[in-house]
Amino acid sequence: MQTKTVKEIADYVGGRVLGSEKVVISAAATLDTAGPGQITFLSNPKYTPKVQATQAAAVLVAVPVNTDAVQIITEDPYYAFMQVVVLLHGHREHPKVGISPQASIDASAKLGEGTQVSAFASVGANAVLGKNCYLYPGVCIGPNVQIGDDCIFYPNAVIYDGCRIGHRVIVQSNAAVGQDGFGFATHKGVHHKIPQIGRVVLEDDVEIGAGCAIERGTLDDTVIGQGSKIGDLVAIGHGTKIGAHCLLVPQVGVAGSATLGHHCVLGGQAGIVGHIKVGNLVKIGAKSGVINDVPDGATIVGTPAIDAGTARRAYSLIEYLPEMKKKIKELERKVEKLNPDQP
Amino acid sequence: MQTKTVKEIADYVGGRVLGSEKVVISAAATLDTAGPGQITFLSNPKYTPKVQATQAAAVLVAVPVNTDAVQIITEDPYYAFMQVVVLLHGHREHPKVGISPQASIDASAKLGEGTQVSAFASVGANAVLGKNCYLYPGVCIGPNVQIGDDCIFYPNAVIYDGCRIGHRVIVQSNAAVGQDGFGFATHKGVHHKIPQIGRVVLEDDVEIGAGCAIERGTLDDTVIGQGSKIGDLVAIGHGTKIGAHCLLVPQVGVAGSATLGHHCVLGGQAGIVGHIKVGNLVKIGAKSGVINDVPDGATIVGTPAIDAGTARRAYSLIEYLPEMKKKIKELERKVEKLNPDQP
Amino acid sequence: MQTKTVKEIADYVGGRVLGSEKVVISAAATLDTAGPGQITFLSNPKYTPKVQATQAAAVLVAVPVNTDAVQIITEDPYYAFMQVVVLLHGHREHPKVGISPQASIDASAKLGEGTQVSAFASVGANAVLGKNCYLYPGVCIGPNVQIGDDCIFYPNAVIYDGCRIGHRVIVQSNAAVGQDGFGFATHKGVHHKIPQIGRVVLEDDVEIGAGCAIERGTLDDTVIGQGSKIGDLVAIGHGTKIGAHCLLVPQVGVAGSATLGHHCVLGGQAGIVGHIKVGNLVKIGAKSGVINDVPDGATIVGTPAIDAGTARRAYSLIEYLPEMKKKIKELERKVEKLNPDQP
Repeated sequence: MQTKTVKEIADYVGGRVLGSEKVVISAAATLDTAGPGQITFLSNPKYTPKVQATQAAAVLVAVPVNTDAVQIITEDPYYAFMQVVVLLHGHREHPKVGISPQASIDASAKLGEGTQVSAFASVGANAVLGKNCYLYPGVCIGPNVQIGDDCIFYPNAVIYDGCRIGHRVIVQSNAAVGQDGFGFATHKGVHHKIPQIGRVVLEDDVEIGAGCAIERGTLDDTVIGQGSKIGDLVAIGHGTKIGAHCLLVPQVGVAGSATLGHHCVLGGQAGIVGHIKVGNLVKIGAKSGVINDVPDGATIVGTPAIDAGTARRAYSLIEYLPEMKKKIKELERKVEKLNPDQP
Repeated sequence: MQTKTVKEIADYVGGRVLGSEKVVISAAATLDTAGPGQITFLSNPKYTPKVQATQAAAVLVAVPVNTDAVQIITEDPYYAFMQVVVLLHGHREHPKVGISPQASIDASAKLGEGTQVSAFASVGANAVLGKNCYLYPGVCIGPNVQIGDDCIFYPNAVIYDGCRIGHRVIVQSNAAVGQDGFGFATHKGVHHKIPQIGRVVLEDDVEIGAGCAIERGTLDDTVIGQGSKIGDLVAIGHGTKIGAHCLLVPQVGVAGSATLGHHCVLGGQAGIVGHIKVGNLVKIGAKSGVINDVPDGATIVGTPAIDAGTARRAYSLIEYLPEMKKKIKELERKVEKLNPDQP
Repeated sequence: MQTKTVKEIADYVGGRVLGSEKVVISAAATLDTAGPGQITFLSNPKYTPKVQATQAAAVLVAVPVNTDAVQIITEDPYYAFMQVVVLLHGHREHPKVGISPQASIDASAKLGEGTQVSAFASVGANAVLGKNCYLYPGVCIGPNVQIGDDCIFYPNAVIYDGCRIGHRVIVQSNAAVGQDGFGFATHKGVHHKIPQIGRVVLEDDVEIGAGCAIERGTLDDTVIGQGSKIGDLVAIGHGTKIGAHCLLVPQVGVAGSATLGHHCVLGGQAGIVGHIKVGNLVKIGAKSGVINDVPDGATIVGTPAIDAGTARRAYSLIEYLPEMKKKIKELERKVEKLNPDQP
């Protein structure tokens, strides 16, 4: 942890200071908890009253607010805040382990300069790792895997044979990448395993959450596009293609052979059936079940998932079904009375 | 496994015997399968006929039942049964491993008396473990982690750097505690990782199920309150606070910055959105999706989750929607006929 | 990878050739991507136009199609395709590791002939493994586990003490088999752990997906029946019995003490409450929530799950609830006008 003056921070994020530039900041904090010596941010205008009442020393804002805190005016306060957290606190520092004598590295594997391998991590035959990668304890890199530079594999992450991993990829603990797709040919009531000869490709800057399960493709590769971030406990089916810069929140499931465009956002526990095509810039609500193709730019919710605006009205009416049923019955009675002979 | 007489068991649980105190019991069993020499229990009165028909040697009951089995009358038969299972079968005994020469323990780590570390387990720099903890193979305790006494970490459980763990905590296999929260600042279409500088705090007597993923906080800690039990494959978001004595059944997901009170029970696959407040003693049905604050003592079900009584009637009517639609159409036709000129 | 002539392939799968038997095939591919030198298949007639347009060298079909590709006519093209993938590409070959000096095997454990144990894998006291099993790095086999022949345990898979595993069982990475069931007796607001003394039994030919969590039984065993295939991140509760030849797709959850018959298929993210009985040959749609017993042969969908035909009509009408509500109101107004005095 470092301390910085407001001026240093404003210069770093390219912001303009309202108040004393000399105030010293030692930590970043949330709007609810920030106190003296701390910096926070306002990105959602509805929390403006909290900025007015804050004890924080400084606050990142898009437009000036009436507050005692020093303000740093910047176009995208949340992005600036991220920069400040990096500046003050930094990203995690990994223990220096070099190549642990307690690791198991096949003689044919190639490790780039600066790559470190912790105790109980293993690297298979003909695997190729780039520079400055870091393998925590228990990580298992299978044979013939290719990995770029600056990747981090947290404890017990597993990369199966033959997968391809780009630069700056992060795989959190206990995630599995490249296990066999769920592919069986059922013949006379018995399920026969189909060899899964495709791979998983994780493009540059992908992050895979803890406990994820990313299946390799049956014949084609499973692909997670550049910059996409996958939350914890997400399951991706075999042969599925996730586009660039998507966000898949924890516990999402995408079945096999589905295609997602770029910049899609999937809420927690959402599920997508196999073999469908989801466009670009699609937003899918938490817990939604998507069973049909989705056009570019759509925002959908529910199971089955429909347009979010419609869904919010419609799903909130389920509560009134008993009342609606009763009213229909009452209407039937009244109409019957009005004209009992009508067919 | 030990054998005990009915009298010994009754004394142990503080119950009163109806029948022979000398009957010898060698095992605990379910009401459906219990046979000679075995003890079972009745906690739900609807299964009383099963007690009348049981072949069990003894049964724990709250009120006397007409049965050939010896009865032990006790206020809370299920709790008494738990005590009997402990008495007869005991909790799991862990292999005595001491400090395995195949473990990796940083020289600066401190291990309390009686703490055992299996092969391929690792303990990072400045980690402090209390007395009588047990680390199974492949467990990874990160740097600066603090752990109380009598904790058990099953194979390949991972505790990230800096987390705080109380006494008598159990973490099942392949669970991850303290991985980075899913926090990114999106700027010009690119997701930038926000360092997650909060920790995970597991208070005393917490149990974490197999394959769970408990995110560390972005700035504040993620907290699982005293005595709360988390089922398998549960995802907890960054900065979320779970109160004391909650039960989260397998596959539950709680998004970031949510707050749950004490003694909440969440059914399987239930999901809770971020930033909401769930009160104390709340019951949430399996598969429910909770999107709003929930008051103390509420029982809610459905997606979106509503009062359980209303929900049971309402959701069961979805089945009749086609019929309701048809009836409305029919009514429109009839009303039209009754007065075709009406606007 | 091998090359084979169409004749060799047709003989292998027992099919009849339409076209040149001498064409050489080097790889299997999907209908969408197959090109020269490759073989593909048609199992769903709706994709017949794709076969007509394919660049593939050969195609497996049930009935002849108008296409330039050589055709192999066979009763079950998907099954034949599986055989061809095995013939051309084979199942995964495991690195020859013998018994790694970096493994940890208890002196009392027994390993069958040909069984291999990788670095950082551990085998507990009195465990018995059959012939030709393969343990990848980080696998943990607990004390007293019994395992048949030809089983494969992928990296970091964990089998708890005392479990029983048949022949040809596959457990993918980071799966946990036999962790404690979620069983607590709540007494005066505190949850007391009930020792889980049952086991998990995986019968012959079972496959367990990556990151699964299969709880051991409280008193009775949890059983996964012969030939059943469990997808990734599936949670199975304590004491649950899954019949033979079931398919449980990723992220399914089955609560404790449930019983499933044989040949059931559960779609992704489906959930089944505890203590219910699901018959044989039941199909349960993705994301469904099953809360009642299900008869043999049923196909059900939705939460709560109902007959699939009804469900598809009913759930698709949720979208029209606002319109239905409006129409009811309108009808009430009109009927009121027709006879304002009517009670």
